[in-house]
Amino acid sequence: MCQLLGMNCNTPTDICFSFTGFQKRGGETDVHADGWGIAFFEGCGVRLFLDPQPSAQSPIAELVRNYPIRSLNVIAHIRKATQGVVSLENTHPFQRELWGRYWVYAHNGNLPQFLPQLDSSFLPVGNTDSERIFCWLLQSLRQRFSDAAPSRDELFAAVHELILPLSGMGIFNFMLSNGEWLMAHCSTELSYVVRRAPFNVAHLKDEDVMVDFSKVTTPNDRVAVIATLPLTDNEQWITMQPGSLWLFHEGQAVSHFLTHPSPIKSLSGV
Amino acid sequence: MCQLLGMNCNTPTDICFSFTGFQKRGGETDVHADGWGIAFFEGCGVRLFLDPQPSAQSPIAELVRNYPIRSLNVIAHIRKATQGVVSLENTHPFQRELWGRYWVYAHNGNLPQFLPQLDSSFLPVGNTDSERIFCWLLQSLRQRFSDAAPSRDELFAAVHELILPLSGMGIFNFMLSNGEWLMAHCSTELSYVVRRAPFNVAHLKDEDVMVDFSKVTTPNDRVAVIATLPLTDNEQWITMQPGSLWLFHEGQAVSHFLTHPSPIKSLSGV
Repeated sequence: MCQLLGMNCNTPTDICFSFTGFQKRGGETDVHADGWGIAFFEGCGVRLFLDPQPSAQSPIAELVRNYPIRSLNVIAHIRKATQGVVSLENTHPFQRELWGRYWVYAHNGNLPQFLPQLDSSFLPVGNTDSERIFCWLLQSLRQRFSDAAPSRDELFAAVHELILPLSGMGIFNFMLSNGEWLMAHCSTELSYVVRRAPFNVAHLKDEDVMVDFSKVTTPNDRVAVIATLPLTDNEQWITMQPGSLWLFHEGQAVSHFLTHPSPIKSLSGV
Repeated sequence: MCQLLGMNCNTPTDICFSFTGFQKRGGETDVHADGWGIAFFEGCGVRLFLDPQPSAQSPIAELVRNYPIRSLNVIAHIRKATQGVVSLENTHPFQRELWGRYWVYAHNGNLPQFLPQLDSSFLPVGNTDSERIFCWLLQSLRQRFSDAAPSRDELFAAVHELILPLSGMGIFNFMLSNGEWLMAHCSTELSYVVRRAPFNVAHLKDEDVMVDFSKVTTPNDRVAVIATLPLTDNEQWITMQPGSLWLFHEGQAVSHFLTHPSPIKSLSGV
C-alpha cells in the first residue's frame, strides 16, 4: 500500500515540516519506495513534482523539503506498487483539468474489480486502477453537471454518491482537490490534525525534528494536515472512521459523510 | 516576447547543457523574467516544473540544471508577459491529456484577436491567449478524429491545416509534443541544430561553459535541439523559415510544411 499526505489551509502555508517526516517513509523509515509525488496549488495553478525514485533518496524531494512553496492545498503520495509498474506515468498524484480548474487526485488502495466504462473525455495515461478511478470520477461529475461547475457542497454530495458503490469493493483511501477545497476518503486508515492558535511545538515521529509553529504563524492561521498515519507524536491527531468522506476548506473539516447513503454529521463552524 | 527551447532525441538524453544557457536568458543575459517552465517526457509520463520566478534566480531551475533527467522530448519556456498576469497558472508549458497521452504546449507570441469558441472539453485555467490556443487545438483535434488517435503524419497534417488561418494573425511561435514527436512552428524566430556522430565540443553563448558530446554519447545518438535563438556559438544552427511548421521525431526533422496550404518539402530519411 501507499501513504497519503494532504494539507488544507486558510492562508498559504509551506509543508516543509510535515513533508520532512513523510519523505522518510519513502524507503527509509517505511517501505513505500516505488516513487512519490506532491502537488501544490498556488492560486489556480499547480506545481506537480513527480519522481519514480524513492522519496528518501530523491533530489527533487530534497528540493521540496527545503524550498518553502506556500499553498492552500497540497496532496502528496508515496507509492508501494500494487498495480502498474514503477514508472513516471503511474506515479501519483494525477492531474486533469475540468471546468477550467486543475484537479489533483492521489489514492492509497486497490480496486482491481472496478472497471468503469470510460467515454474518452478523461483517459488514463498509465495503467493503475487509481488513475482509472480518477478519470471515471471526473467523467461522472461532468456528465452530472454538464458544462457548469456546481457549488462546493453540491460537488461534495455528488462525490459521496458516486463513490458509495466503490467503498465496499476494496481499499479506497484517497485525496482530491481542485485548489479550493480538499476531500479525503478514509476507507481503512487516515488521520488529521488542525493546527490553530495557540500554536505549539510539534515533534516529528520519523525524524528528530521539531518546529515551534508559534514563531512561523499569525493568530488567524488555520492548517489541517491529513495523513495515512500521524506524522507527529505530541499533537492530537483525529483518527477518521473507516468508511467516511471528509471535506476540508480553509483549514478545517467543514463536513463529513459516512460512505453510506445519508450524511451523519456536519462540523460547519467548528 | 518569450523564448522557447525544445529537444527531441532517439535515445533518452539530458538537457542540462542546453538548459544552462537558456536559463541565463530568464532575467540575466536577457529580459525574460516573468517565470519559466520545462516539461520532460519519460515514457508516457511527464515531469513539468513551473516557476513564476525568473529562471536565473530559481532554485527549481538550479535543480533542473544539475539533475540529469533523461528524456526523448523536452519543451521549455521563459516568459516575458504580454497577456495575463505573472502567476503560476499563466506559466508555460501547459499540459493536458488527449487520447490517453499527455500533450505539452508552449508559445512565444501574441494572438489577442483569436477568440475561438471552446466547448468545455478543454478550458484554460489561466488567462493567456497561449493556453486558449492550446485548448482550442486539442478540442479541434478531438473533434476531427473523435475517440481514436490518428497516425503521426495525419496529426501533423491536421495541425498544419488548423493553424493556417492563425499564422497571419500575430506572432505564433510554438512547440507541441505528445511524448512521441515534437512539432515546432516558426512564425518569426526559431532555429535548430541536430547533434549526431561525429560529436564535437560545443560552447554556450550565454555562459562560458563547454561540453564534449563525444564523451557523453554513443555513435547512434541523435539529438535535435530547437530554440528561439541559437544557444551555442560554434555549431551549425539552421534558421527556420518564418511561416514554417516542423515535425521532429527520433532526433531529426522528418518533415516540414510552410504555413501555407501545400507541403513544400519532406526531409524524411535525412
